[in-house]
Amino acid sequence: MKGMMMHRPLKIADLITFAADTYPAGEIVSVRTEGDIHRTTYKETAGRIARLAHGLKALGITESDRVATLAWNGYRHFELYYAISGIGAICHTINPRLSAEQMIYIVNHAQDRVLFVDLTFVPIVEKLRPHFPADLRIVIMTDRAHMPETTLEGVLCYEEILDGQPGEMDWPDFDEDQAAGLCYTSGTTGNPKGTLYSHRSTVLHAYDMCVTIPRVLNEGSRILPVVPLFHVNAWGLPYGAPLSGSSLIFPGGALDGKSLFDLMDREKVFSAWGVPTVWIGLMNEIRQRGRIPEGFGDIVVGGSAASRSLIEAFEKQGINVCHAWGMTEMSPLGTQCNLPPEMADLPFDQRIDRKQSQGRRIFGVDMKIVDDAGNRLPHNGTTPGHLYVRGNTITSGYYEDPEASKPVFDKEGWFCTGDIAAISPEGFLTITDRSKDLIKSGGEWISSLDLENIVMSHPGVANCAVIAVPDAKWDERPLLIVQPSDEAQPQKEEILCHLAERVAKWQVPDDVVFVDALPMTATGKVSKLTLRKQFPEAPHDA
Amino acid sequence: MKGMMMHRPLKIADLITFAADTYPAGEIVSVRTEGDIHRTTYKETAGRIARLAHGLKALGITESDRVATLAWNGYRHFELYYAISGIGAICHTINPRLSAEQMIYIVNHAQDRVLFVDLTFVPIVEKLRPHFPADLRIVIMTDRAHMPETTLEGVLCYEEILDGQPGEMDWPDFDEDQAAGLCYTSGTTGNPKGTLYSHRSTVLHAYDMCVTIPRVLNEGSRILPVVPLFHVNAWGLPYGAPLSGSSLIFPGGALDGKSLFDLMDREKVFSAWGVPTVWIGLMNEIRQRGRIPEGFGDIVVGGSAASRSLIEAFEKQGINVCHAWGMTEMSPLGTQCNLPPEMADLPFDQRIDRKQSQGRRIFGVDMKIVDDAGNRLPHNGTTPGHLYVRGNTITSGYYEDPEASKPVFDKEGWFCTGDIAAISPEGFLTITDRSKDLIKSGGEWISSLDLENIVMSHPGVANCAVIAVPDAKWDERPLLIVQPSDEAQPQKEEILCHLAERVAKWQVPDDVVFVDALPMTATGKVSKLTLRKQFPEAPHDA
Ligand SMILES: Nc1ncnc2c1ncn2[C@@H]1O[C@H](COP(=O)(O)OP(=O)(O)OP(=O)(O)O)[C@@H](O)[C@H]1O
Ligand SMILES: Nc1ncnc2c1ncn2[C@@H]1O[C@H](COP(=O)(O)OP(=O)(O)OP(=O)(O)O)[C@@H](O)[C@H]1O
Ligand SMILES: [Mg+2]
Ligand SMILES: [Mg+2]
Repeated sequence: MKGMMMHRPLKIADLITFAADTYPAGEIVSVRTEGDIHRTTYKETAGRIARLAHGLKALGITESDRVATLAWNGYRHFELYYAISGIGAICHTINPRLSAEQMIYIVNHAQDRVLFVDLTFVPIVEKLRPHFPADLRIVIMTDRAHMPETTLEGVLCYEEILDGQPGEMDWPDFDEDQAAGLCYTSGTTGNPKGTLYSHRSTVLHAYDMCVTIPRVLNEGSRILPVVPLFHVNAWGLPYGAPLSGSSLIFPGGALDGKSLFDLMDREKVFSAWGVPTVWIGLMNEIRQRGRIPEGFGDIVVGGSAASRSLIEAFEKQGINVCHAWGMTEMSPLGTQCNLPPEMADLPFDQRIDRKQSQGRRIFGVDMKIVDDAGNRLPHNGTTPGHLYVRGNTITSGYYEDPEASKPVFDKEGWFCTGDIAAISPEGFLTITDRSKDLIKSGGEWISSLDLENIVMSHPGVANCAVIAVPDAKWDERPLLIVQPSDEAQPQKEEILCHLAERVAKWQVPDDVVFVDALPMTATGKVSKLTLRKQFPEAPHDA
Repeated sequence: MKGMMMHRPLKIADLITFAADTYPAGEIVSVRTEGDIHRTTYKETAGRIARLAHGLKALGITESDRVATLAWNGYRHFELYYAISGIGAICHTINPRLSAEQMIYIVNHAQDRVLFVDLTFVPIVEKLRPHFPADLRIVIMTDRAHMPETTLEGVLCYEEILDGQPGEMDWPDFDEDQAAGLCYTSGTTGNPKGTLYSHRSTVLHAYDMCVTIPRVLNEGSRILPVVPLFHVNAWGLPYGAPLSGSSLIFPGGALDGKSLFDLMDREKVFSAWGVPTVWIGLMNEIRQRGRIPEGFGDIVVGGSAASRSLIEAFEKQGINVCHAWGMTEMSPLGTQCNLPPEMADLPFDQRIDRKQSQGRRIFGVDMKIVDDAGNRLPHNGTTPGHLYVRGNTITSGYYEDPEASKPVFDKEGWFCTGDIAAISPEGFLTITDRSKDLIKSGGEWISSLDLENIVMSHPGVANCAVIAVPDAKWDERPLLIVQPSDEAQPQKEEILCHLAERVAKWQVPDDVVFVDALPMTATGKVSKLTLRKQFPEAPHDA
């Protein structure tokens, strides 16, 4: 028997309508590419989104068309998220840090009809234009006064698209499974692969993040997404913030420690979200100034593992660190590591032990860990296995890529994350490695994350990575690559000794290589792929 | 184009599984009908729910069967909620305060197959048994040691149903629209009418309440539902609490001010939810003891309008009052009146002005107000109209009652609440009356709620109601019925004068009637239906 309740599609547009009705004064503050700071509210923004949506229709955009963006975090990018999905089209965010080759691949693969570009990225588009579809329209995200000179033909101006359009929109209803967003992975292996989000998955993800992180997502809270709108929906913040009535502070393109500190200080940001690299920069700035930004109380850190020393540094300043884990294919949140109240009174070190884990699953995400044969492993906190996930916010296959999709689902339909993890009886997930980064030495696994964590706690180390190199005797051995802190000149022996005191002898890398800077992926993570290419074998002087 | 995301049914069982995984230590504390206090956790409870579900199946319960409950707020009732819905059956909660006639009507109308009864209510069931379906099984919610002597034949014992059953359950998947719960309105007009909740509506309602009231619904928060599990799902708390990781303190049958104070004090309840009558009782106790219960910081009050003086009394003690509005037909929450941060600094009186309104809509509930002809009215805060609602958590028709269903939906499919309300530009809803309680005097509407509010602020008044009585000249005139506070002997003139100073002269009732106690409905509201029967016209000495 069916229940007798109304059936309304879960719709992204309802999030912004709700915010405009309920949190009309909720703020969106943006550092603009034009150079100044822009302030607006959810109420005003809903009006501009309506105008943009009418403008998109006037451009001929219809249901399921892909509309691409190449832009920083700012209010116009936010408006595009809602206007594009609101009319049933698909918001395809492009990561400007991708290689030219990858960008060409995805714009053509997605068959984008319009591309919205921030001023900063006009030169990239000028260069790649010949390789994009001939009928692609290009819109520059600024007003008439700031339109640049460009070799691009027939470019449009963002503000002119809004001009004269009505500030109200009767958002159309469609099936809640309608596609709403498209994001390609950074393509560290093979071609980039697209995740095609739906209205249902996006609204449910917004709910999921709000109910599990109410500490941050609540009315009046001020949140800084350093994590970009151009990659996995800025971890869902553009949806979760309006739903919860939080204000958004968009940093534009200035993501160094100093710029972030100044912005946070001025805007009294409570919670800032981003990858570890960003927080390393901010912590340097905090140390230099001898204080934290005003109002600052929380970071959410993910994308790759935050080192213990990074977590400690923030917690010592009284800033709550919430480690989070997720993937493009998961909308992206999977777990969050705020501690339960019963752990609040643990000694500092034990709390950090916990905070180093990736935390507990958010509602809606089911997790299992299995052995190589696919058998379920116990959640005892110590047995790592292949991590699989299932839920409404998780991909069911890559966009127009059946070949890439096949290998990532098991017989029960669960998605293979490619991560190796253990789960504790209290539900805490600990990622020990990516399966492609695993090191197998003499038949035993070595966790690169564990080693990296320890090395990061050495004061002379700014950043580091451990990769596998082939070894005749042991099959594989770990190689440690270190980027020293400014002015520090740590010695190999010193670092290896630091390790040897803390792990089993056979896990200690045989050698350390020093580099000026570690290579980064397009999403701001250390690129182990590049490192493996750079160091296909142990260096000669080992 | 459809998104490419997994599709999992929204399922009630997932809420308790999530709580067991993620908030294993979250507490359920119950004052038992057996007389003692019972403590358990979400983890343990999930195990018992699994055993109960297996037990229900062993009793022959299958998908869509109605399984009824007649019970106080306690852990066994909570277990029934999940076990019944979890296996696809329908949890039909019965209000023990209904009249015998109404109870007989609904048990037969619902065709319940099993009835779970608390010890307290065994006598009621003994009396009504002959009028219930012959094949109805009856289970007494206690263990073998506490089984009462009873004239009921073949009764079962709750704990014995769990005995020997496995503590794990692979909860079946079904369509998320599957019916999950059934609750009849109190039937103040005509026969009771059933709202048939679905898994989808219930899970979405849990999300909606958690994202809009994160102040209360968050991990470790301690919540006391005085609002009963036997009526509109205790306002959604049995679902919202596990989703958010809040603990539940169930008061059993002792709902007087003293019992509640003691329980809250001992259990450090942060937030308590219930109808105004309950809070009048608790406030008396607080005044007598000269202090508030330890840890107490919040009440959610709804079901009928909380008077200004009640809201003030709690706020003056530093307790946040959240006025909420909803209906059985809405799962039930529609609005909540926590204030936005920008109103935190308003002077006390202005904050109370706001808090007297029913507040802002929760996500998922759309509202419109219309005139008699169905035309939309502006949200200007002053123009009242008929309030209609729409959303996934709202009924689409009464269970097996097409006749009652027809008149309550408009052409666009919106549900008619029967309430008259205005909506402010900031989204605050103010209920001015039920349409059936409206008073039309000389062609002008008089809001009974407005008058009641003012009368309630008179120190000699414990409770009051204003109803319409026929009048030859003015068509209708307001009649004021007052229940004086203990020991107070207020005079008519005094009270009318109090009113005359605050409202237009023509709105002042012509007379006051004093009563020892106001009649109450089964859900703890003043019964204006009964009053209208008692006072079909103005009293003679007027
Ligand atoms: N908190 C975290 N701790 C450890 N690893 C993390 C954490 N958060 C994310 N990751 C890693 O990042 C991965 C998901 O990242 P994302 O989807 O942004 O792209 P990517 O996997 O780095 O790129 P690509 O899929 O193109 O190789 C996870 O599978 C996991 O390996
Ligand atoms: N905060 C509130 N302020 C004013 N009225 C309220 C409030 N909350 C609920 N109500 C009233 O209660 C009604 C819903 O109550 P409920 O569904 O519990 O049953 P009922 O309407 O009292 O009973 P029945 O439908 O059988 O007549 C609303 O329509 C509204 O009139
Ligand atoms: Mg990946
Ligand atoms: Mg009603």
